[in-house]
Amino acid sequence: MAEVTNKEMTNREEDYSKWYNNLVVKADLAEQSAVRGCMVIKPYGYAIWEKMHEILDKMFKDTGHVNAYFPLFIPKSFLSKEAEHVEGFAKECAVVTHHRLMNDPNGSGVVVDPSARLEEELIVRPTSETIIWNTYKNWIKSWRDLPVLCNQWANVVRWEMRTRLFLRTAEFLWQEGHTAHATREEAVAEAQKMVNVYAKFAREYMAMPVVIGHKSETERFAGALDTYSIEAMMQDGKALQAGTSHFLGQNFAKAFEVQYANKEGKLDYVWATSWGVSTRLMGALIMSHSDNNGLVLPPALAPIQVVMVPIYKKDEEHSAIISRMNELKAEMEQVGISVKIDDRDNLRPGFKFAEWELKGVPVRVVIGPRDLESGNVELARRDISTKESVAQASLAQYVKSLLDEIQKQMYEKALKFRDENIIKVDTWDEFKQQIEKGGFLLCHWDGTAETEEKIKEETKATIRCIPIDSCVCEEEGKCVYSGKPSQRRVIFARAY
Amino acid sequence: MAEVTNKEMTNREEDYSKWYNNLVVKADLAEQSAVRGCMVIKPYGYAIWEKMHEILDKMFKDTGHVNAYFPLFIPKSFLSKEAEHVEGFAKECAVVTHHRLMNDPNGSGVVVDPSARLEEELIVRPTSETIIWNTYKNWIKSWRDLPVLCNQWANVVRWEMRTRLFLRTAEFLWQEGHTAHATREEAVAEAQKMVNVYAKFAREYMAMPVVIGHKSETERFAGALDTYSIEAMMQDGKALQAGTSHFLGQNFAKAFEVQYANKEGKLDYVWATSWGVSTRLMGALIMSHSDNNGLVLPPALAPIQVVMVPIYKKDEEHSAIISRMNELKAEMEQVGISVKIDDRDNLRPGFKFAEWELKGVPVRVVIGPRDLESGNVELARRDISTKESVAQASLAQYVKSLLDEIQKQMYEKALKFRDENIIKVDTWDEFKQQIEKGGFLLCHWDGTAETEEKIKEETKATIRCIPIDSCVCEEEGKCVYSGKPSQRRVIFARAY
Repeated sequence: MAEVTNKEMTNREEDYSKWYNNLVVKADLAEQSAVRGCMVIKPYGYAIWEKMHEILDKMFKDTGHVNAYFPLFIPKSFLSKEAEHVEGFAKECAVVTHHRLMNDPNGSGVVVDPSARLEEELIVRPTSETIIWNTYKNWIKSWRDLPVLCNQWANVVRWEMRTRLFLRTAEFLWQEGHTAHATREEAVAEAQKMVNVYAKFAREYMAMPVVIGHKSETERFAGALDTYSIEAMMQDGKALQAGTSHFLGQNFAKAFEVQYANKEGKLDYVWATSWGVSTRLMGALIMSHSDNNGLVLPPALAPIQVVMVPIYKKDEEHSAIISRMNELKAEMEQVGISVKIDDRDNLRPGFKFAEWELKGVPVRVVIGPRDLESGNVELARRDISTKESVAQASLAQYVKSLLDEIQKQMYEKALKFRDENIIKVDTWDEFKQQIEKGGFLLCHWDGTAETEEKIKEETKATIRCIPIDSCVCEEEGKCVYSGKPSQRRVIFARAY
Repeated sequence: MAEVTNKEMTNREEDYSKWYNNLVVKADLAEQSAVRGCMVIKPYGYAIWEKMHEILDKMFKDTGHVNAYFPLFIPKSFLSKEAEHVEGFAKECAVVTHHRLMNDPNGSGVVVDPSARLEEELIVRPTSETIIWNTYKNWIKSWRDLPVLCNQWANVVRWEMRTRLFLRTAEFLWQEGHTAHATREEAVAEAQKMVNVYAKFAREYMAMPVVIGHKSETERFAGALDTYSIEAMMQDGKALQAGTSHFLGQNFAKAFEVQYANKEGKLDYVWATSWGVSTRLMGALIMSHSDNNGLVLPPALAPIQVVMVPIYKKDEEHSAIISRMNELKAEMEQVGISVKIDDRDNLRPGFKFAEWELKGVPVRVVIGPRDLESGNVELARRDISTKESVAQASLAQYVKSLLDEIQKQMYEKALKFRDENIIKVDTWDEFKQQIEKGGFLLCHWDGTAETEEKIKEETKATIRCIPIDSCVCEEEGKCVYSGKPSQRRVIFARAY
């Protein structure tokens, strides 16, 4: 493991896709497992996901939600109860058919015991609407039982044919909120509230600008009446859907017969939402900020915010430097900064610099014998590769405001890039040219699935969203493809 | 849901098992799902599990461990690589055989697509030694890569035939630590360290006394050279294994070819441990403390530590009381106490008292119009059902030390009960008599699996552990069953 340096990193400009895969593995974030399409999330990658989990969980609780846990398995018949839902997920289901292995009668290891066939096959959950609404049936009787505001942190499985670490894996980790409401208005408001929570998380913690919008009917979640999403732009100009929030209407309540008695004692079907973000956010984070030297992490999500590297020749120097480092570490920890001292004795400082650069640690602090005398440190920023000398006496306070500054600047940089690459396109020729360069194409569209499909066939671009914020789109115009009248622009892009 | 009161609780003395099931459901902790043997962990139950998770996670990190995530699925061939391991788990495996559903050609919903059969079946992990050691093979090359100290929070599936909420479910949540070491001594020390972490958690947070000990060879984890466990005594005198820590020797390193180069450059197999606790702890918690009025929670694990119930007739009274309650709530929260004001307007105070009793909230604070005048509150303790009047001015400080006191007393009460029910038994007649009454039977045993098996057949009692702490057991004697010589006593009990 120790031989990895960023010199071996693929160049981002040469092959963005290879650069990404390379970075994920070399920065110790994740790796392929022995199981097709399933990844191992390594400790460093998992530590970032844990931070995301922790922050999001608090945001959910602050907005009135509670956590619960529902079964991993879904009876096959449940999936079929909502017609669009099964259509959307049937083709990528992992199916459990047996509950026992036995010794092979021919003596070659273990085989499935044919006598242990399940009466009804179980699906490993691709999403939990069906099992949850089957449960809510018993929880909801009257308007007093509403709203139900549950979230679940769980693993789900979708048998994707082409997988990529974090971006598209057969198994992934996520949270799925499932709420039940007395009225349509309340459910719509909930779906909107949660897409806004996601946007806030993306912007403030991931330093990642996003556009909030509606999905087109074609791109909606299977079983939803409306899907809101946050769409981010990666550095190669491609779009990445980073979170979705669905207004499900009464579809699942009807499929699972969930009715409640309103204040007048009349029965009505319950209104639903669901919303989720997943370990895909890790991919979005990586592709928003990283460079040819490796990962660049926003301070708010960095498991290690400051790494300290000693430079020394003699043993006395070493012990004096480490002892000073421990004092400074304690001062920084006091103000809430997470610090690691890299005291490995078998590696040169240059190697350590490269490794922590690769891992995206926002600030590096170096102390050598001369710094010890002068009372300074050498401080380097990961995001813009600057170096400066900072007095030890004021280091903790300095780093604290620097981390805020880095967080802010990383967002601004990404926002500038994003906004420069949102392009108004009004003719089909322009569209075909521009889509090759990447970016979000802000175009008029005639609102039909046919046009959407044709544009996709010809250019691989899809409607990422019908924006609600981030750009002024309400204006009359003509569909970029069909020339038919349109009331607003939408965002087309190629997407992850 | 609102009609539930503890009057409907089964009496603990009449039918302990029914009392338990009843309590789990009525206190809103968990319920059966539509999937055989899988439970739904309801928000209130999950909130307790979250507290356990949070505290344990911190204890693991404080002892140098990091979290990671490994695949849900295990290739069937991996399970077979360690002979005892597959023997132990093959009979309870959920097996994924297909990866797609299709519309039934006969038009009756969806069916498994026969063309989507997997080349190799996948097992839903019953535990992750095999997939993890297959991964460690790539992580470990030299002594510098050791130790590897990973933990994973995950769901696992063991297809148990007879299930009970929390105690034995087909799917359960747990953590599994998997560590790799250069030497046998280090691995043994790790296994011991972690069983001690579990014991500390049980004692200090769950207020549950435990005996630490070795498992007998028969009761060991499939693939381990030594298994340490913590054994708790439930209120009916039965034992519950609450956590295990395994010294795995080099078994998995050999099965998956994991070798490291030591300082001399020589290759050697890596030494392993694994250790885990699960949502079973919820069952242990419930059965250690609860009574005929419902759950009794130790303050350290109570999602709500104080519930405040207003008593009023007029609207002005109500608003004055609630406003005072909000002030007191803020004062208590300031010192780290979690407080809920139950301001539901459609329920009588008596109903609320019963409900919060059922849910085990440690302290109830009631304020009526007279309390408002006198500047006092009525405070009730859940654990021993006492009531007292406390000055509002000192409420926060009073409750803070009271919660500590309750935590301590709950442990002492459970310890007293446990110690009174650890009985030295020296004859077979006594054994057969005593085992019917329950408790831990401290007996000499000749050390053979045959005797162990016969005792189990005749009395359903098993060796819970060969104690390391909690009782003086090193003494010469004669096996309670065979009369053969023995060097120490062990604990026999019937167990969950």
